[in-house]
Amino acid sequence: MSINVLIAPSGFKESLDVDDVVEAISEGVKRAVPDANLMKAPMVDGGEGFTKGLIEATGGSLHEIVVTGPVGQPVDSFFGFLGGQDVPTAVIEMAAAAGLRLVPRDLRDPTVTTSFGVGELIRAALDSGAKRILIGCGDSGINDGGAGMAQALGARLTDMRGDDIALGGAGLASLAHIDPSGLDPRLSRVTVDVAVNWHNVLLGPKGVARVFGPQKGASPKQVEQLEQALETYAERLRIDLGLDIGYVNGSGASGGLGAGLAAFANATLHPRFDIVMQYLDFEAMLGDADLLITAEGSLDSQSPYGKVPCEVARRARELGIPAIALAGTIGSGVDRTFDAGIDAFASIIKRPCTLEAAIGSAHKLLRRAAEDAMRMIMVGTRLDMQARPIRVSTAMPFGTQSRLNLTN
Amino acid sequence: MSINVLIAPSGFKESLDVDDVVEAISEGVKRAVPDANLMKAPMVDGGEGFTKGLIEATGGSLHEIVVTGPVGQPVDSFFGFLGGQDVPTAVIEMAAAAGLRLVPRDLRDPTVTTSFGVGELIRAALDSGAKRILIGCGDSGINDGGAGMAQALGARLTDMRGDDIALGGAGLASLAHIDPSGLDPRLSRVTVDVAVNWHNVLLGPKGVARVFGPQKGASPKQVEQLEQALETYAERLRIDLGLDIGYVNGSGASGGLGAGLAAFANATLHPRFDIVMQYLDFEAMLGDADLLITAEGSLDSQSPYGKVPCEVARRARELGIPAIALAGTIGSGVDRTFDAGIDAFASIIKRPCTLEAAIGSAHKLLRRAAEDAMRMIMVGTRLDMQARPIRVSTAMPFGTQSRLNLTN
Repeated sequence: MSINVLIAPSGFKESLDVDDVVEAISEGVKRAVPDANLMKAPMVDGGEGFTKGLIEATGGSLHEIVVTGPVGQPVDSFFGFLGGQDVPTAVIEMAAAAGLRLVPRDLRDPTVTTSFGVGELIRAALDSGAKRILIGCGDSGINDGGAGMAQALGARLTDMRGDDIALGGAGLASLAHIDPSGLDPRLSRVTVDVAVNWHNVLLGPKGVARVFGPQKGASPKQVEQLEQALETYAERLRIDLGLDIGYVNGSGASGGLGAGLAAFANATLHPRFDIVMQYLDFEAMLGDADLLITAEGSLDSQSPYGKVPCEVARRARELGIPAIALAGTIGSGVDRTFDAGIDAFASIIKRPCTLEAAIGSAHKLLRRAAEDAMRMIMVGTRLDMQARPIRVSTAMPFGTQSRLNLTN
Repeated sequence: MSINVLIAPSGFKESLDVDDVVEAISEGVKRAVPDANLMKAPMVDGGEGFTKGLIEATGGSLHEIVVTGPVGQPVDSFFGFLGGQDVPTAVIEMAAAAGLRLVPRDLRDPTVTTSFGVGELIRAALDSGAKRILIGCGDSGINDGGAGMAQALGARLTDMRGDDIALGGAGLASLAHIDPSGLDPRLSRVTVDVAVNWHNVLLGPKGVARVFGPQKGASPKQVEQLEQALETYAERLRIDLGLDIGYVNGSGASGGLGAGLAAFANATLHPRFDIVMQYLDFEAMLGDADLLITAEGSLDSQSPYGKVPCEVARRARELGIPAIALAGTIGSGVDRTFDAGIDAFASIIKRPCTLEAAIGSAHKLLRRAAEDAMRMIMVGTRLDMQARPIRVSTAMPFGTQSRLNLTN
C-alpha cells in the first residue's frame, strides 16, 4: 500500500522559486510517508524560471546561446527542450532575452527596449529541430508589441519611406507597412503555444502600456507615446495581416509580445496555467494521484480567481481527488477556497515570527509543513470508521449533553 | 458514520484557561465535522481553575464559602462537588483558600502566610456530605507545610511551653509536639486524593522553600529560615506520627501542603494528571474515542517530560488511538513527541505575527486550528487505499525516477 501524491505548487513570491517549492514539499512528504510515490508538476507561470522549471520536471535539456538583449547589447540567454516527448518540443521564456532584469536600471525605457532576442531564440529553437514550441510570457522589460521579435524572424516593418522602423516601442509610431513574406518559413510548419496572463490586452485603459509601462521605466508622457504607437501597430496588423488583436485576451502579455507572436509566429495564446498543465500532461498525472498537494505564498479570498492552488484543486475535485494547500500566509476569506477545490490547508508558520524570518526559512518551514500535513492526513487513514460499530448512542453529542458520567 | 473525538488539552499559559481551550477546540471540530461526537476531558493541573474545570466537565456544583485567607483575613472561597458520581465527591483547589493571588503584593511573606483556610474548606466539604475528596495543589502563596490546614481540622501543634505555634511557615521553628487526636474523625472514613506536581519535595536543595520560597516573597534569609522550620516540622512528623515524608514525591506541593495532607488528612498524593484522569474516567472515554485531540501553549522537546499532551497521548497510543496536538508554538525538538504518543501536530499560527497578537486572538486561532486539523484528517479518511489497486508501477518513486514522461 502506497500513496500517489501529485505535487503541483506555484512558486512563493520573494522567497522560493517553484522548483524549490516542489523540492521542499517532496522532502516533507517523504519524511512522513517514506514509501509515498511522488509526481511533480511545478506550476510555472510564464516568467523567469519557466524554462528551467519545465525542463527539470521533464528531464529535458538546456541550450545556451547569445542573443540581442533588450537594449541591443549581446546577452547570455538560453532555451530548452522538454524531456520525454514524441515531438521535439522547445520551451522558451521571453524574459531570458527581453526580461526587465536584463535592462540596466538606468536604461529602463520601454520606448527603446526590444523583443528582438526573443525572435532569435525562436529561430535557434527551429534550428535545433523543434516541431513544437512553448513560449512563456512574463517579467518583460519591453513594450514593442513583439515587433522586434518579428523583425528577427524575417518580417519587415517599414515607415513611410520604406525604411525599417527603429527598434523599441516608440519606433512603432512611424510604422506604415508590414510585410510578413520574409518570415522564417518553418514557422508555418510548427505548433507554437504561448503561456500568457489571460487578462493582459494590447490596447486601451487596461492595455499593456498603461498598466505595465510605468514599472518598466516609462514616464507618464512615454506611456501615452507607447499607447499611440501600439495603436498604429494594431491598425497595421489589421490592415496588412487581417488580424484584429488589440483587445484579444493575452495580446498584451509581455509588452504586447502576445500580439506579435499571434501575428507573426503562427502562435496560439493560452491562459498560462492551462497550457502548462497541458504540456505537463497534468490531467493524466491527476488521474493516477490519490492526493494533490499545492502551495503558494499566500492563500486567501483572491485565490479562487486564477491562482495556482485553486486552478489545480478545481481539476482535482472534478475527479474526486482530495486536494490540500500549503501557504506562508493564510489570509482572510480563505474559506472561499473550499468551494474552489481545496479540502484542507495549512500554514508553514509554526510559531509567532516576523515575515522576514518566515521568508528567510521558507524552504525549511515548507518542508516541515508538508511533513506535518501528511502526518495529519495519515491520522485520518487510521480512522477506519466503516469497520467500527457506530457508537453514537454511547458518545455524547456536543450541545445536547456535554457532561460526563463518572463512575470512578 | 460519525467520529468520536476526545478533547483532552491543557490550558494555554497566559492566554486561555483549560475550559476555553476545550471550548475552542470543540467549536473548531464541529465546524469541520458537524456530526462528530465530542467527549471532553479538561486536563486541569492542581492550581487555579481546578475546581471550576472539573465541575464544568462533569456537570457538578459549586459551593461558595468564606474562609480564613493566607494572611488571616476572611476571603470569598469555594469548593465543588463533581457531577454524576455514585460516591459524593468534593473537589477543592488549595489556591481558593491560600493561593498566591490572595496575598496582597505588599504582604507576600511566606513566613507568616497560612494554609488554615484549606482545612476549613475540607471541613466544609465533610459537612456537605463528601465521602471522597480530590484536592488540587498549585499556585500557592504559603510555605507552612500544611500546618495551618492541620490546625483548622483539629490537630494541635504546640511549642515547648505547650502553646499553639503561630500560623505561617516560621511558626514551625518552635514546634515541639504534634497531637493529632483532635482531628476531625470523619477524615478517617473518607478517601482523600491529592493532585500534586510529583517533583516537589518538602526538604533539601530541591525542597519547596528553596525552589518556590522566593517567588512567594521570601528573602534569601527567610528561605533558610523556612527550610529550618520545615526540617523541625518533618522531624516532629517522624517522631510524633511515625511519618518520614521530607523527601517523598509531592510532599513539597503547595508550600508543603502535600506533606500536611498526607500526615493529617489521611490523603494519598498522586501525580496531578494521573489522578485527574482517574477522576474523569479518562481511560473509559479513551476507549470510546476514535481520535484524541490535545493541546498546550507550547509543544517542544520538553513535552514528553510530564506535560499534558504527551501524558494523554501516551495512553492513547497504548490503546491504538491516534492522537494529535495543537499548540501556539511548535518549538525545537518537537519530533520527540512522536515517540511519546503524538501522531501529528499543528500550530495555531496561520501567518507571521507577534506573540502578543497570537495571545490576543488565541481562542479564535485555536478554533481555526482545530477546524483545519480536522479537515486535514478528513482528507485522510478519503484515502481509501485498501480499496484501490496498488499502482506503484505506474507512479514514479522519488529519487529513483523523478522525471515525467509527457505524451501530450
